[in-house]
Amino acid sequence: MITPYIGYLAAILGTICWLPQAWKAWATRDTAGLSLVSNLMFLLTVLLWFGYGLLIGDWPLILANFCAILIVLSIVAAKLKFG
Amino acid sequence: MITPYIGYLAAILGTICWLPQAWKAWATRDTAGLSLVSNLMFLLTVLLWFGYGLLIGDWPLILANFCAILIVLSIVAAKLKFG
Repeated sequence: MITPYIGYLAAILGTICWLPQAWKAWATRDTAGLSLVSNLMFLLTVLLWFGYGLLIGDWPLILANFCAILIVLSIVAAKLKFG
Repeated sequence: MITPYIGYLAAILGTICWLPQAWKAWATRDTAGLSLVSNLMFLLTVLLWFGYGLLIGDWPLILANFCAILIVLSIVAAKLKFG
């Protein structure tokens, strides 16, 4: 069955998908169109998933969301710096 | 135990967190700073989670990602329209 692989692919893609946004924000310094509220809510989301992963001891959840926290933090930082 | 509630909260927040971004994109028409690549990858991510939910018959996953697909589609549409 390919079902678990669809889950793994979604988890990996969901972790790395904001890398181009982080890169673009720092490269262009054009963050006016980014919603700070959305990105802060998303940061809280990945922090909650990270905490949930720790509580249930699920390493894929912990690792994926640790990476996501770093990426989203860099987007929030760019938004706060460039406005 | 509060553990499952942390998971539910993360799932709900992860579904609605892009609503302010969608609103902002259509209201300001300023989408220059949005990464099309990131948003297309994220659209594929929520489509994969939706398909995964269907395959394992998980209704929370199906419903959350159906809502996310609509929200992310509207962000991608704004980006394609306003550039």
